[in-house]
Amino acid sequence: MQIAWIGTGVMGSAMAGHLLTAGHELALFSRTKSKADGLLRRGARWAVSPRAAAADAEIVCVMAGYPEDVEAVVLGPEGALQAMHSGALLVDFTTSRPSLAVRIADAAASRGILALDAPVSGGDIGAREARLSIMAGGTKEAFEKAFPLLNRLGKTVMHQGGAGCGQHAKMVNQIMIAANMMGICEGLLYARRAGLDPQKVLASVGGGAAASWSLANLYPRILAGDYQPGFYVEHFIKDLQIALDEAARMGLKLPGLALARQLYEAVRSGGGARLGTQALILALERLNHLAP
Amino acid sequence: MQIAWIGTGVMGSAMAGHLLTAGHELALFSRTKSKADGLLRRGARWAVSPRAAAADAEIVCVMAGYPEDVEAVVLGPEGALQAMHSGALLVDFTTSRPSLAVRIADAAASRGILALDAPVSGGDIGAREARLSIMAGGTKEAFEKAFPLLNRLGKTVMHQGGAGCGQHAKMVNQIMIAANMMGICEGLLYARRAGLDPQKVLASVGGGAAASWSLANLYPRILAGDYQPGFYVEHFIKDLQIALDEAARMGLKLPGLALARQLYEAVRSGGGARLGTQALILALERLNHLAP
Repeated sequence: MQIAWIGTGVMGSAMAGHLLTAGHELALFSRTKSKADGLLRRGARWAVSPRAAAADAEIVCVMAGYPEDVEAVVLGPEGALQAMHSGALLVDFTTSRPSLAVRIADAAASRGILALDAPVSGGDIGAREARLSIMAGGTKEAFEKAFPLLNRLGKTVMHQGGAGCGQHAKMVNQIMIAANMMGICEGLLYARRAGLDPQKVLASVGGGAAASWSLANLYPRILAGDYQPGFYVEHFIKDLQIALDEAARMGLKLPGLALARQLYEAVRSGGGARLGTQALILALERLNHLAP
Repeated sequence: MQIAWIGTGVMGSAMAGHLLTAGHELALFSRTKSKADGLLRRGARWAVSPRAAAADAEIVCVMAGYPEDVEAVVLGPEGALQAMHSGALLVDFTTSRPSLAVRIADAAASRGILALDAPVSGGDIGAREARLSIMAGGTKEAFEKAFPLLNRLGKTVMHQGGAGCGQHAKMVNQIMIAANMMGICEGLLYARRAGLDPQKVLASVGGGAAASWSLANLYPRILAGDYQPGFYVEHFIKDLQIALDEAARMGLKLPGLALARQLYEAVRSGGGARLGTQALILALERLNHLAP
């Protein structure tokens, strides 16, 4: 099948690679061409714009960073929708605004194009191992057309509802992760200050009611002083801000989320934008005048 | 072996039952005698006070509700320490103040008695299935003497350090759980308000980076409107308050913990003291003027 792939960052490259492996013909566009080199060597074709990439595609996939990027590569003058033919499918994997997903779905529908918002969870590892959780929003028709492709990229593929509902489900995911990271980092600070051995503490709390993916995967990185990104602080702040904006729009107060965003903002303002989300501990250490 | 067991609530009864099964002779004391009936029928002996229960015991176990209860049954005029002989061992399973654990260990040491603080995690199920995580604080000698018994009650038995360190490790556990519950409840509120199907959301987020014990075990109870206690709100507030007091004593600001305690306080003031910790959602619903 002819597929266009727009956005070849860490996640996008790994995901697009699976489509090459599956034998699809890929047209690529990315803001930074060098990031597409690996895929081009494997036989993908370079396109000079999202529009050019999308011209002959049956399915157009987008994995960008921010809602503004999605807007540009989908709805802009050189965007994919300009070239897509009726009956084709647009799948946006970016974590982005639900309202933008609705706007894209409407613009697509007016041209007879199917659209799906399909943000993912599972990080770079999940992308590489095709074990992502994919949360899809759009019509049943769009979901069914996309399913074989989604199923190749993810382990858990769920249709969450109409346009924007994939994004909303992803927001729920991020809300839960943010608060949990806060608890994990505060617990670790407490453990250190109380003079405990954080490894032994992990052995005790990791097998009980405090057990979580983040505790098992990110707490050990903090202990090792490893703040390398599985997921960037700046992207997480973008997600939390979208969640807070949506909550405000729905008249919903989420105090834990607001606090977590504030602490992550402190990580960013301390220079941690490109660190991983486990760097939340740095903000709490600063708050407590502790050297990292 | 002669063992005294003081406190036969939900957790204590299940744990003491394993010791009967293992063939130990048990002397029991509990504030409410009727709660000991099951164990008495199985051959345990009733004692009129903690002191009386402890008189011939090689090991005295305590599982009470609050630090004040522990203080009374251990250090009070009718407390266990009054009757314990030199070389005997006191194990306090109650989640309580680290400073009280130190005080008990000191009082015990002055009489040649060994003492261990050994709070547990894993709830009523963990107690029944002898799969608790047990976090022990005390001397190496006390831990080694206690180990065979702890190992019969728990799956994960860790020596966290000197007196009070078991309590500190349990505080870490509670700090992590509190923030995570906040994220889970806020995520669920968001999901509902956004019109998502919370079951489908669980299917999406439960297998990824938001996965946690509480999400798998308590989120479904909230969906079912089931606020029955695995663990009482009022006991959890006690724990969070101890953690905050200890943090303040150590000069540590933990904003997530402070917020979680405040929200749990709102659950209690709304009449939810004897509900399970998943009732946190009720406070967030009230904050948002939503009917439960």
